[in-house]
Amino acid sequence: MAFSEFRPLHDNSLIDYIKSVPALSSKIGNDFDNLFVKEVGDGNLNFVFIVLNSAGSFVIIHALPYVRSIGESWAMTKERSYFEWLALKEKGRLCPEHVPEVYHFDRTMSLIGMRYLEPPHIILRKGLVAGIEYPLLAEHMADFMAKTLFFTSLLFRTTSEHKRDVAEYCGNVELCRLTEQVVFSDPYKVSEYNRWTSPYLDHDAEALREDNLLKLEVAELKSKYYDQHSSFIAVCAAAIVVLGFFLLYYKSIHFCSFCERAQALIHGDLHTSSMMVTHESTQVIDPEFAFYGPMGYDIGAFLGNLILAYCSQDGHADQKNDRKAYKEWILKTIEDTWNLFQHKFTALWDEHRNGAGEAYLPAIYNNPEVQLLVQKKYMTDLFHDSLGFGAAKMIRRIVGVAHVEDFESIADAAKRATCEKRALDLAKTILKERRKFEGIAEIVSAIRKHES
Amino acid sequence: MAFSEFRPLHDNSLIDYIKSVPALSSKIGNDFDNLFVKEVGDGNLNFVFIVLNSAGSFVIIHALPYVRSIGESWAMTKERSYFEWLALKEKGRLCPEHVPEVYHFDRTMSLIGMRYLEPPHIILRKGLVAGIEYPLLAEHMADFMAKTLFFTSLLFRTTSEHKRDVAEYCGNVELCRLTEQVVFSDPYKVSEYNRWTSPYLDHDAEALREDNLLKLEVAELKSKYYDQHSSFIAVCAAAIVVLGFFLLYYKSIHFCSFCERAQALIHGDLHTSSMMVTHESTQVIDPEFAFYGPMGYDIGAFLGNLILAYCSQDGHADQKNDRKAYKEWILKTIEDTWNLFQHKFTALWDEHRNGAGEAYLPAIYNNPEVQLLVQKKYMTDLFHDSLGFGAAKMIRRIVGVAHVEDFESIADAAKRATCEKRALDLAKTILKERRKFEGIAEIVSAIRKHES
Repeated sequence: MAFSEFRPLHDNSLIDYIKSVPALSSKIGNDFDNLFVKEVGDGNLNFVFIVLNSAGSFVIIHALPYVRSIGESWAMTKERSYFEWLALKEKGRLCPEHVPEVYHFDRTMSLIGMRYLEPPHIILRKGLVAGIEYPLLAEHMADFMAKTLFFTSLLFRTTSEHKRDVAEYCGNVELCRLTEQVVFSDPYKVSEYNRWTSPYLDHDAEALREDNLLKLEVAELKSKYYDQHSSFIAVCAAAIVVLGFFLLYYKSIHFCSFCERAQALIHGDLHTSSMMVTHESTQVIDPEFAFYGPMGYDIGAFLGNLILAYCSQDGHADQKNDRKAYKEWILKTIEDTWNLFQHKFTALWDEHRNGAGEAYLPAIYNNPEVQLLVQKKYMTDLFHDSLGFGAAKMIRRIVGVAHVEDFESIADAAKRATCEKRALDLAKTILKERRKFEGIAEIVSAIRKHES
Repeated sequence: MAFSEFRPLHDNSLIDYIKSVPALSSKIGNDFDNLFVKEVGDGNLNFVFIVLNSAGSFVIIHALPYVRSIGESWAMTKERSYFEWLALKEKGRLCPEHVPEVYHFDRTMSLIGMRYLEPPHIILRKGLVAGIEYPLLAEHMADFMAKTLFFTSLLFRTTSEHKRDVAEYCGNVELCRLTEQVVFSDPYKVSEYNRWTSPYLDHDAEALREDNLLKLEVAELKSKYYDQHSSFIAVCAAAIVVLGFFLLYYKSIHFCSFCERAQALIHGDLHTSSMMVTHESTQVIDPEFAFYGPMGYDIGAFLGNLILAYCSQDGHADQKNDRKAYKEWILKTIEDTWNLFQHKFTALWDEHRNGAGEAYLPAIYNNPEVQLLVQKKYMTDLFHDSLGFGAAKMIRRIVGVAHVEDFESIADAAKRATCEKRALDLAKTILKERRKFEGIAEIVSAIRKHES
């Protein structure tokens, strides 16, 4: 048929494609006469088409082989669409309440057909910029993170189940590598991709590159995986060597240190533009960076982006709305998210303690006291991981390549810079001092203190 | 020829084999009339034959597909002999002064032909039991560890060199897995393989299984790798899946969490029976457990076994020799080994700071202050890793499957138990408190304090 090899689809070719796919055309009653098709992608990577008529609707996610926000100059495998589909299916299975249904996947075309999240669903980040409260957000995100992280970890899985599942994702190294560069490296060195609100933050960007203690902490976050990354690569190489294809595959094997900490199947990009929300609904989308990695990377992404939203509010305040009450709601959401996550996650752990999970052998961790010790340490380490990753992700959004609408939408550069600087200083403090925080309430206090 | 497939060699078949291998027969001037052949293996795994005559000599290391010290009931791949050969060659290249030359390797026969370490070379452990001082031991072992660990780490290597080399060793998972079981699991649970000096240590062995804080620390040591192990497995599986051989290889893929921390090419079993010594010479042998793993595992193995030797001395004291002076020499050797290692390792780091090593990107770690911070943290973490692994290896030698001659050669069980209990208590303290020790001198003080 006409789509036996990849080509970028646009409005007309897209309709021809849909006609050729019953799973999609049936969703719109096979009626192409009054079809509404609109490209709405505003993410960094993909093209997103809304397709709807009176009979029904769906969304098409179409990956092109480069980073959309940068252009063809930054090549990016369209295979990411395969991992996005894998993750949507797996996370949908574990937490159907908060993951949209997938109707169709075409690996050749790097194309996913899935539920259209109808209005009033909007991207959470836009809601945060608009000052809209979402009373169920913390509850929903805690639920999503607790279920998707616990059930894909060795706390629940046997090592053989785990290794089989990790295996599926280890081909997603190119996106891991992108993350590693833009999150852990570029912001701390001179890079052509870095940008910031100049001239206001020129000094701050430079100070970041000269902050030794900060760079020590970034090395620590990165080195949790760095030491191991080569074995990930290596073992890929090894099995290939064994099978005599080493040279063939060698060039396609990429550096991805933090694919190494295969703690759980993480979303990999869980910021506030990766969920669409209404007052009643929270739907997590765009898991194209999904891989088996550190849980704290997901939790930190969500909390860090809520803190960015908080810091941006003064830039959106006006006579009609000083945003003071809204800032309080964001702080409450930050606190509730962690506390609810911790509660749900440990409840799942306790419930499945005598299950098949092999992280802590029951023969050794065989009494309530040691089980409590182990769980307490695990959650404390996860909290500090989350703070570290969250802070690193805040920093990179202010001085790195990809910025956030929370700040970008503040037209007045001076005012924007003031908000960004506050967020930057806060992130630096959290990154350096993260081990001193014993609970999320202390983070909320730190955020308040930072303003006064 | 006659040796186209594996079979266990004994004296006569061994001679036929040697005749068929010029690289070996030439070493003995092709003279088989007055040949002396003796099996002298006293290790846990292999058969070792000395072959010599007036013309020359060599040693044959012959691996059989099971654990020699336990018997055919504990199967063990003879492929270990391939990794022993790989490691002998690589470590010999990096530190020829302290690694015996290899003459021949036959993968089919799992057989290595190498330099015969002539008398007065003896296994270090036997020298320590006999109370012999080796004035150059600390200097030599510090040199061996600094060179073999630094030059195989990402402090010196590029990621692509590293991944290629790590790849070679990741097939050695079965031995990693054995280590993991006997070091990190069995001693802390009821296991058919565990044994100890009964009844004297019955209570201590039980107390070990009920020591929650200790098990928490063991989980920490193990979990440094545990989270990652599945990705190691997974990626092997992945590349195989990719190539469509998943089911074929699945069963041969083993759990080996700590193959994951591919910090450097470690010996993997660097206790005091893995080196042969004279007053002038120190030769490291038996690297069949070699893989890319945590540096602290090697350093800890050597230091931990020196502490075992120290604790065993009172059991060897008699009217002729109270061993007091010898115990002081052991303490000095422990202190000198770490201090010399630290000095040599950081000197290599400083020398190659602007080389190809990718662990700390020069573009980020670009000033003396941050370089000092990073190096200080690296060495402190390595010191604490070494203490943790060293203590874990002491414990498993007292209550686990494989014991050490230092204690086993004390005929009087009560006297032996007293020495073992002292070592066990010391190891528990070091394992739990290791982060509080700021230098090796404090360890030496702790050893002294433990006796009084």
